[in-house]
Amino acid sequence: MPVTLAPPTPASLHPVAGVRLGVTEAGIRKANRRDLTLIELAPGSRVAGVFTQNRFCAAPVQVCKQHLSSGSIRALVINTGIANAGTGAAGLAASNASCDAVAKLLGINAAQVLPFSTGVIMESLPFDRIAAGLPACQAALKSDGWFEAAHAIMTTDTVAKGASRQASVGGKPVTVTGISKGAGMIKPNMATMLGFVATDAAISQRLLDQMVKDVADESFNCVTVDGDTSTNDSFVFIATAQAGNAEITDAAAPGYAELKQAVTAVAQQLAQAIVRDGEGATKFIEIAVSGGATRDECKAIGYAIAHSPLVKTAFFASDPNLGRILGAIGNSGIADLDVSKVKLWLGDVLVSENGGRAASYKEEDGSRIMKPAEILVRVDLGRGGAQGKVWTCDFSYDYVKINADYRS
Amino acid sequence: MPVTLAPPTPASLHPVAGVRLGVTEAGIRKANRRDLTLIELAPGSRVAGVFTQNRFCAAPVQVCKQHLSSGSIRALVINTGIANAGTGAAGLAASNASCDAVAKLLGINAAQVLPFSTGVIMESLPFDRIAAGLPACQAALKSDGWFEAAHAIMTTDTVAKGASRQASVGGKPVTVTGISKGAGMIKPNMATMLGFVATDAAISQRLLDQMVKDVADESFNCVTVDGDTSTNDSFVFIATAQAGNAEITDAAAPGYAELKQAVTAVAQQLAQAIVRDGEGATKFIEIAVSGGATRDECKAIGYAIAHSPLVKTAFFASDPNLGRILGAIGNSGIADLDVSKVKLWLGDVLVSENGGRAASYKEEDGSRIMKPAEILVRVDLGRGGAQGKVWTCDFSYDYVKINADYRS
Repeated sequence: MPVTLAPPTPASLHPVAGVRLGVTEAGIRKANRRDLTLIELAPGSRVAGVFTQNRFCAAPVQVCKQHLSSGSIRALVINTGIANAGTGAAGLAASNASCDAVAKLLGINAAQVLPFSTGVIMESLPFDRIAAGLPACQAALKSDGWFEAAHAIMTTDTVAKGASRQASVGGKPVTVTGISKGAGMIKPNMATMLGFVATDAAISQRLLDQMVKDVADESFNCVTVDGDTSTNDSFVFIATAQAGNAEITDAAAPGYAELKQAVTAVAQQLAQAIVRDGEGATKFIEIAVSGGATRDECKAIGYAIAHSPLVKTAFFASDPNLGRILGAIGNSGIADLDVSKVKLWLGDVLVSENGGRAASYKEEDGSRIMKPAEILVRVDLGRGGAQGKVWTCDFSYDYVKINADYRS
Repeated sequence: MPVTLAPPTPASLHPVAGVRLGVTEAGIRKANRRDLTLIELAPGSRVAGVFTQNRFCAAPVQVCKQHLSSGSIRALVINTGIANAGTGAAGLAASNASCDAVAKLLGINAAQVLPFSTGVIMESLPFDRIAAGLPACQAALKSDGWFEAAHAIMTTDTVAKGASRQASVGGKPVTVTGISKGAGMIKPNMATMLGFVATDAAISQRLLDQMVKDVADESFNCVTVDGDTSTNDSFVFIATAQAGNAEITDAAAPGYAELKQAVTAVAQQLAQAIVRDGEGATKFIEIAVSGGATRDECKAIGYAIAHSPLVKTAFFASDPNLGRILGAIGNSGIADLDVSKVKLWLGDVLVSENGGRAASYKEEDGSRIMKPAEILVRVDLGRGGAQGKVWTCDFSYDYVKINADYRS
């Protein structure tokens, strides 16, 4: 059961002019599952992406990077079941073969196709099943296919993840709609498991490339479930230029800020949805760190807290065993941290200051604040003006159950 | 239930001349528990220690470092129940008061006492109960008190941890005996939760200081249960100079190598016992990484595998979902790692090479090798001559249970 996460409805995901989506059951790994998605983009669309930093990055990630640097992208193909990671040269051949099949079907070049895979690592991708499933995807292509695509890219997710915003950009109404998937192996480093966001706004490639990085840093790069950076993390941002606004070519131009705000809102909702649906999650926890010397050290503190199995199990138990948070802060690798200046709050309760328990802190306040499904942890490092944020979930029996059973 | 770990017997822990130990029930946090241990050292004993790198290091750790640098140590006092970490100035006062009480009882200076605490963080240490319990500890002091002390320093440990070796040093028989505790919040960084090893050999302070670091690096600094470096990690090595050997003042002198070998064997057994008794552990896993450019990067790979919740739950399930190990290797922070050169074995089974699944690998071999309670993971990075080792355990329902329930 996800934490306070309303699944999207078909009507809540507005179509984006220039984007059509179609899904099918291709039997990639298991039968009777929608596991293959085709996304077709209108000519003139621009695409930017950020990808996993995992050195065992998956074959499709390698192909995506290559195709993004060469061609004008016209299609995305996404399969679940098999991640096509840790598959060596054969994996690269399988991803390329998938692109070839899409290109043949749509009458475009293979370099205009971006492939994505998610699922089990170190197993072979059956690209013949992808090729066999693609005509059904093509037949199903429709502009209001976001809702079905959000379902077809799920693996251990328990609910589909989608978000949509509308904004005025340069006097024209524009739409931003996105979907994401992911529940475990989540600690994105430049991107999340899989996230796709599209807008019909017109924006230059240079600004699109910058915006995808900026938005990822404020959304997918703020979440962690288990600290495991996936081999397949990909966040792709598409601009189809169908809205009729004058192309944005300058970050100071009218509409840039509005567009970025809408895209950030969609990406944050998608990123938080991943944490809310984190494997076994019963709590959604925001860790806001301020007073740091740099943003990086604030994020390091946030991740140290978010990754501590002891902190995560205490949240699961609603046990205000808050010394564990101090332990995690002290363990974050900041060598010159002066712990006597650190302050820790849970919600509105000051828990710790001057290197120890706050005089005003009462155990019953800690118990009260640990109970809700949404918890805010605030840390002030007292050494500067930087801040950073991390969103995470707790660690429950069900995390173990899901990951001891996955594949079976 | 610990993994293949025979608890020590009273007879297996040989007395060390110059060391006497006594324990009592002081009611530090709960009643009817042996929770206070006093260790008395003969005049002329030398002591060296390594301590946690956690910035929220506990008050007793701060006092230990100060006393080690100033005085000739004559006593150790160890309490369980309360860690006296995250306790600010009041915590320091409590640790100093405990030393004062020991000093008064034994007629020594407070600076000759090393205090150790383990238990819950951010709660106050009731040093009045320590002072009240100390006379009973003193009355119980005996040279064959190691077995009882091993029990009295336990917290979430399910079995006591002790080890003993005898060796010939400079023509004299010497004894090395030690005890340790720890089961969770275990990822020592310079030391373990608590480890105490003593020998009756005579050795210079300079060599003792060096040996405690070298031995920690080959023992306590190789283990991890959950990646949480404790606030209280302490490993102390005592040499009482009662064995009658000529004092070792040179690492090339006769007996140095023999002594170091015996101490390393005791410390490794104690460190491995902590992993075997890791909270909820059902498997003991050795991760041996070779072919690295540096020892540090080999250890980083080992820890990346050992800390991945996905890898740990796969071991718990005996599921050869071995792509998760590749994911963890790729996620270890070595930016220029060439994954096409990485080889991965489980036991004698080659699992992965050339960036993917080994052609010879069969799923049934993976299943076979995942079943036993002791598993060897070998990784060859193919980029140098360095190696490193990490010992860890799996991640089970019981880890969550223990840590969701701890304190209650």
